[in-house]
Amino acid sequence: MKLWQKSTYTVNEKVDKFTVGKDRELDILLAPYDVKGSMAHATMLAEVGLLTEEDRDILLKGLQEIYEEIEKGNFVIEDGVEDVHSQVEMLLTQRYGDVGKRLHSGRSRNDQVLLDLKLYLRDALKEVANNTKALFDTLIEKSEEFKDYLMPGYTHMQVAMPSSFGLWLGAYAESLVDDMVMLKAAYDITDRNPLGSAAGYGSSFPLNRTKTTELMEFQSMAVNVVYAQMGRGKTEYHVANAMASVAATVAKLSMDGCMYAGGNFGFIKFPNEFTTGSSIMPHKKNPDVLELTRAKCNQITSLPTQIMSILSNLPVGYHRDLQQIKEILLPAIEMLNDCLEMTKLMFEKMEPTKDLLEAPIYDYLFSVEEVNKLVLQGIPFREAYVIVGEGIEKGEYNPERTVNHNHEGSIGNLGNDIIKKRMEETYF
Amino acid sequence: MKLWQKSTYTVNEKVDKFTVGKDRELDILLAPYDVKGSMAHATMLAEVGLLTEEDRDILLKGLQEIYEEIEKGNFVIEDGVEDVHSQVEMLLTQRYGDVGKRLHSGRSRNDQVLLDLKLYLRDALKEVANNTKALFDTLIEKSEEFKDYLMPGYTHMQVAMPSSFGLWLGAYAESLVDDMVMLKAAYDITDRNPLGSAAGYGSSFPLNRTKTTELMEFQSMAVNVVYAQMGRGKTEYHVANAMASVAATVAKLSMDGCMYAGGNFGFIKFPNEFTTGSSIMPHKKNPDVLELTRAKCNQITSLPTQIMSILSNLPVGYHRDLQQIKEILLPAIEMLNDCLEMTKLMFEKMEPTKDLLEAPIYDYLFSVEEVNKLVLQGIPFREAYVIVGEGIEKGEYNPERTVNHNHEGSIGNLGNDIIKKRMEETYF
Amino acid sequence: MKLWQKSTYTVNEKVDKFTVGKDRELDILLAPYDVKGSMAHATMLAEVGLLTEEDRDILLKGLQEIYEEIEKGNFVIEDGVEDVHSQVEMLLTQRYGDVGKRLHSGRSRNDQVLLDLKLYLRDALKEVANNTKALFDTLIEKSEEFKDYLMPGYTHMQVAMPSSFGLWLGAYAESLVDDMVMLKAAYDITDRNPLGSAAGYGSSFPLNRTKTTELMEFQSMAVNVVYAQMGRGKTEYHVANAMASVAATVAKLSMDGCMYAGGNFGFIKFPNEFTTGSSIMPHKKNPDVLELTRAKCNQITSLPTQIMSILSNLPVGYHRDLQQIKEILLPAIEMLNDCLEMTKLMFEKMEPTKDLLEAPIYDYLFSVEEVNKLVLQGIPFREAYVIVGEGIEKGEYNPERTVNHNHEGSIGNLGNDIIKKRMEETYF
Amino acid sequence: MKLWQKSTYTVNEKVDKFTVGKDRELDILLAPYDVKGSMAHATMLAEVGLLTEEDRDILLKGLQEIYEEIEKGNFVIEDGVEDVHSQVEMLLTQRYGDVGKRLHSGRSRNDQVLLDLKLYLRDALKEVANNTKALFDTLIEKSEEFKDYLMPGYTHMQVAMPSSFGLWLGAYAESLVDDMVMLKAAYDITDRNPLGSAAGYGSSFPLNRTKTTELMEFQSMAVNVVYAQMGRGKTEYHVANAMASVAATVAKLSMDGCMYAGGNFGFIKFPNEFTTGSSIMPHKKNPDVLELTRAKCNQITSLPTQIMSILSNLPVGYHRDLQQIKEILLPAIEMLNDCLEMTKLMFEKMEPTKDLLEAPIYDYLFSVEEVNKLVLQGIPFREAYVIVGEGIEKGEYNPERTVNHNHEGSIGNLGNDIIKKRMEETYF
Repeated sequence: MKLWQKSTYTVNEKVDKFTVGKDRELDILLAPYDVKGSMAHATMLAEVGLLTEEDRDILLKGLQEIYEEIEKGNFVIEDGVEDVHSQVEMLLTQRYGDVGKRLHSGRSRNDQVLLDLKLYLRDALKEVANNTKALFDTLIEKSEEFKDYLMPGYTHMQVAMPSSFGLWLGAYAESLVDDMVMLKAAYDITDRNPLGSAAGYGSSFPLNRTKTTELMEFQSMAVNVVYAQMGRGKTEYHVANAMASVAATVAKLSMDGCMYAGGNFGFIKFPNEFTTGSSIMPHKKNPDVLELTRAKCNQITSLPTQIMSILSNLPVGYHRDLQQIKEILLPAIEMLNDCLEMTKLMFEKMEPTKDLLEAPIYDYLFSVEEVNKLVLQGIPFREAYVIVGEGIEKGEYNPERTVNHNHEGSIGNLGNDIIKKRMEETYF
Repeated sequence: MKLWQKSTYTVNEKVDKFTVGKDRELDILLAPYDVKGSMAHATMLAEVGLLTEEDRDILLKGLQEIYEEIEKGNFVIEDGVEDVHSQVEMLLTQRYGDVGKRLHSGRSRNDQVLLDLKLYLRDALKEVANNTKALFDTLIEKSEEFKDYLMPGYTHMQVAMPSSFGLWLGAYAESLVDDMVMLKAAYDITDRNPLGSAAGYGSSFPLNRTKTTELMEFQSMAVNVVYAQMGRGKTEYHVANAMASVAATVAKLSMDGCMYAGGNFGFIKFPNEFTTGSSIMPHKKNPDVLELTRAKCNQITSLPTQIMSILSNLPVGYHRDLQQIKEILLPAIEMLNDCLEMTKLMFEKMEPTKDLLEAPIYDYLFSVEEVNKLVLQGIPFREAYVIVGEGIEKGEYNPERTVNHNHEGSIGNLGNDIIKKRMEETYF
Repeated sequence: MKLWQKSTYTVNEKVDKFTVGKDRELDILLAPYDVKGSMAHATMLAEVGLLTEEDRDILLKGLQEIYEEIEKGNFVIEDGVEDVHSQVEMLLTQRYGDVGKRLHSGRSRNDQVLLDLKLYLRDALKEVANNTKALFDTLIEKSEEFKDYLMPGYTHMQVAMPSSFGLWLGAYAESLVDDMVMLKAAYDITDRNPLGSAAGYGSSFPLNRTKTTELMEFQSMAVNVVYAQMGRGKTEYHVANAMASVAATVAKLSMDGCMYAGGNFGFIKFPNEFTTGSSIMPHKKNPDVLELTRAKCNQITSLPTQIMSILSNLPVGYHRDLQQIKEILLPAIEMLNDCLEMTKLMFEKMEPTKDLLEAPIYDYLFSVEEVNKLVLQGIPFREAYVIVGEGIEKGEYNPERTVNHNHEGSIGNLGNDIIKKRMEETYF
Repeated sequence: MKLWQKSTYTVNEKVDKFTVGKDRELDILLAPYDVKGSMAHATMLAEVGLLTEEDRDILLKGLQEIYEEIEKGNFVIEDGVEDVHSQVEMLLTQRYGDVGKRLHSGRSRNDQVLLDLKLYLRDALKEVANNTKALFDTLIEKSEEFKDYLMPGYTHMQVAMPSSFGLWLGAYAESLVDDMVMLKAAYDITDRNPLGSAAGYGSSFPLNRTKTTELMEFQSMAVNVVYAQMGRGKTEYHVANAMASVAATVAKLSMDGCMYAGGNFGFIKFPNEFTTGSSIMPHKKNPDVLELTRAKCNQITSLPTQIMSILSNLPVGYHRDLQQIKEILLPAIEMLNDCLEMTKLMFEKMEPTKDLLEAPIYDYLFSVEEVNKLVLQGIPFREAYVIVGEGIEKGEYNPERTVNHNHEGSIGNLGNDIIKKRMEETYF
């Protein structure tokens, strides 16, 4: 069934198959939101006199039934039915007659799918935020637990200065706070009601868009109807950007994890149950999980490019191209959530190595400490630097292996409480 | 079953699920190639004395059986079995005993999956090339059929000079010739045998890699075993680049088609059966197919970025990250083939508009013809240009509406034969 | 002069040239911020007892002198001096002796350049926000001025429903409000003080990071020193994302402008002085400015990919790679500001066409209005749709050309006041 | 001076500045090619009777003079002159009168700049190929020189199996062979003559395009004039793709170099003169050159995305947008050449570490060798694997540290001669 079907011709079969694509399977994810949107629409239509109270009540009852069928997994988009919107309208008409045909007044599938996506993405962003917060909590917890475990800090991939597991893990926690700022910005942009924009040019019906905005608890309306339509694609782009931000943090942490689990570093280990083996090398215990979170999250950083490649240079107005974006974004959200969960799991199980800095390759870590001691004796920094540097060249460098970092955010004063407070303020 | 399973521990269930991912469903596509590769490997092992002739014959027989099961759709990767390689090895061992366990000598799953991918992509590139060639043939045919239909040519999206359907369609045909150059380059890079590189560092077995190269009809070997392994990811990247090249041509043609089918141009129409309607506007006949080929092909142009986002800054050696690339590339190949087929179908059905240039908005198309007439009368080009320009400003411009373009590649001399010949030389 | 120069060897000339790259020319942009940062650092060092009050006063005086030289354009990074930090330190030492060598205590060039970038980007984001706001104001003004000029609205690039210049221009204004949300998020992430993180691992000096945070009016501190360092690259990435957001809006508006200025639409014109001509076609008046704002802004949408291609898979800790990002980002900021200014100029000068909808190709725009009339007579929407559709097929469609859209955000009720209010709340 | 200037109005100053952009500085790179193209055009015009032989001779003389001025660095694009084409035409007219105005017959700046770019890129690709070949030669030489230096091979960033400097460096050499395949494909696509396509729609003049193809030694013609114009952007895209391919190899090699120079690996060293220091850590010797070749080459991998972001969804016909691509591509070519040279220099100076595999962390490298020994004793591979694996778990693993890899492409049989031969066949 096609809402736009005319009696005079039938769509070519290949065209039908190609244009429907994966809509049916993706639309299942949107189904509960579609029904909620229709309930708000029906309520508003009655309020402005475009639907009788009796018709509204029938529609609300019918929609509630469908909603429950969706919840129970009993809802399907039937073969030959184009999409979720058509399926819902058809069910209502089958069950309650002509009243089902009145529901589409003052809207278009364009604003309907846009609305469904906004409602879906609003929930999806909350789920990503929850998973991000959960990983954050684990990282802060482990940062505190291992704050006394020193590790080498690198610059230019060269041994540089002393660091600690507390600093390393806390840094990624703080990174997630800034990622949460991006998630929140995407959420605010998503959380605007497009309903009433119809095909992007509004309607001559006296719709009350403030009413539907309130009914669906949007914080605001996408006011201009042309802009409301433009929100298709743009919303997904912003969600993708925020996801890319989280993903970049997780990918970087995974890279560190893979490297530090390698024999040349040996900073961390994972229990056997969390590693995998090789078909040819019997000794291998590979950190495949972190390699996959790295790969998947790196892939997610290319999401905005994928979406922009579809959007760029499309002039104003709806294009069918926008439908393709669902195929890109929806599976990626699940992928990111999986990665967040698996990364959390791995860092819960991670076992750090003690007394790492005893090894002779880490001697030079303490060179700045030696410079600083001279500075505190009154020698200008630049001269102290030269003295220690010359000592190293001559082989006369013999450092004391102690670390006395106490300023805000340093080894001895991680500032995790401030970071936690900031997360609390940002989290939504 | 895991080839690397040890008795002492069981992999965590979540880790298992996450690391297997979509491997099982994608591996089905690789299954026939996996079996072919194993047949070549077994043959070679026997030749160098690492397998008895009896064992080889049993293995070849067993592999042939499995190949036929795959062909018939009777092959599955069982639950709990990690991948296609494990499934094949397990079947052989179940059916023929210990001989199945001898097949993995001198190779690793790393070179096995790499081999499977190379064999798969070799065929995939040929299929893309076939579909590209088929679209090319349609475009050349339509270019010839409609060579006398003039149409406006644009620069800066402004009416510029006369063009024709012959030129327009022929241009995209010629574009596909250059895309075919890229497909061929990707094919040449793909068509190198990695087998024998094991986990990327070779083996102490006296493998004969030239033998397997010949058996599988590779044009050459990926010689250096470290490079052979590096071919993972790099091969896919090059295939993706070539696909992006084809896709960019199809996307651009689709954009033209969408625009020219719009009311403000009205250059082309499609039969009703090849358009779709609107849920709200009863008059609409939308070119959804071309919008989707545009969107999908634009998305394909971002494939190389997706792959590179995974590859970049991975140091030498296998990483599990590379596994993720299959998920990106394999579905995209099917998508591109679909787009090529649908674009061909649409342009077969396309109906061009006659006598387009009669409309007054196209008057200025002929301004250069007027300049050229003056030039042929001996007036320097730059002066003739000023004369005609001033005529236009004063409203005294009244052009003759004839086109006399006869040089190579112009309206009256399309050069489609040369273009066809070049395609014949490039096509593989 | 190199701050790390040792007496025992001289850097290879090619290495020197290659590693310095464009640092000198880009560092000039950072110079005033570098001096401000040093003033805050010196003030703090004195407060915690690492500098005498006399030394502090000398340094502040010397830095103030240099700041004024920069303002006057009299500051250069001399040949042989590596970067702005070295130049400043050298000048202080030349002019005031050993005290200049005391300034680097407790910091590294790593946190110094990071600080400079943060201070620079904070101002740059404000400038982008100002230019975005200025374009917004023009669009709102023109939306109001031309609110009674109807124009066709398109879906699928097909004539769809009535729209107006008021809707069209107002939509892009509202789009800039959401882009401003992104600019603000980037600003909040940028506006965190990294000073005191030294080379990314802090220092054993008793630095007071809260003090420098206050002195430089940062809204917060990048707490964890490892994260502070990680802010290099990440900050630029977020700024680039926000810029991409603005750029995407401008590019889309430019696309519309180019298309609508073309002869087949003829919706808008620009005065001759704002167009350019052709070397061969004397009649051409091309909208080159909008083509260039389109191209440049589309290019800016790829900024995040460029930056991410450098960042991805770099493990924790400073890498020289990060230096390369300056070369990408800093010129792009100027480019975006130019595009915003030029787009504003073009839309100030734009001349819309009156009475566009009279042309017969726009008849079908009114089909939904006809459907709605039937609905208001009590016919269910879906049946009214079929009736009007059949009328069109039979050629019996003869619409009334009036538009009665009055709901929020529609042609007759643009809602520009709400949009302006939202911009006021977001703008920073 | 503008070739299209009319007397009736003057272009707005801001518009003029914005549209000219960096054209003047980039056009200097194109100047010699512009003159060569004009010489071929003039010769052809005379042959087909559009220019007298006298006029042709004057023009050729004048063009030769300008060519020599360019060679000597005496050519400038004057203020107020729009581009290189205008400057050349103006000089000819100033020096030789009206004959200068005859040169533009039958062409447009569109095909002229396209021609200039093709000629320029043809040379640029040869230069990149030369630099790629030079790096290849160094890598092969060093692969041979250090073929007996063993090093650990990694998979999953874990110690895996024995490798060697010969394998490692030879792998990157072979990678450059495949990159050369891409450079050659880009060259073939570039090397097609667009001259005669005028503004993309040809001309009514009887141009002889085969003649100019021969005169400029193009291997073929871009036949269809609409396609010839479409070559703008598409050519640059393919060049960028090939550059990305080379860059990806160099970036990966640089990553290895940075990692292997770090203290935890210590596989390679560079002389002090080829490293840089730290402003705070007196012991540092950082491999900045390789960090910058990594960053710059990673940035180059995003070139195709940058170009595609401009091209995507532009319908057929010239757009000013295409001008922007020069700004992206031309500086990147210089950057890639610099990176190739610097990487070559660094690997010429690289000092590998001997006897790396003695360290206990590399014990497990030999586990597969132990498995293989059992296989050669007749134990099926899968059982031998389990035996060795259990030995490792029980701490009973005590490997012999010898490597007997002799098959093609392995440690003992690098196959560099085959690789060199393949490069010879591909190099152009």
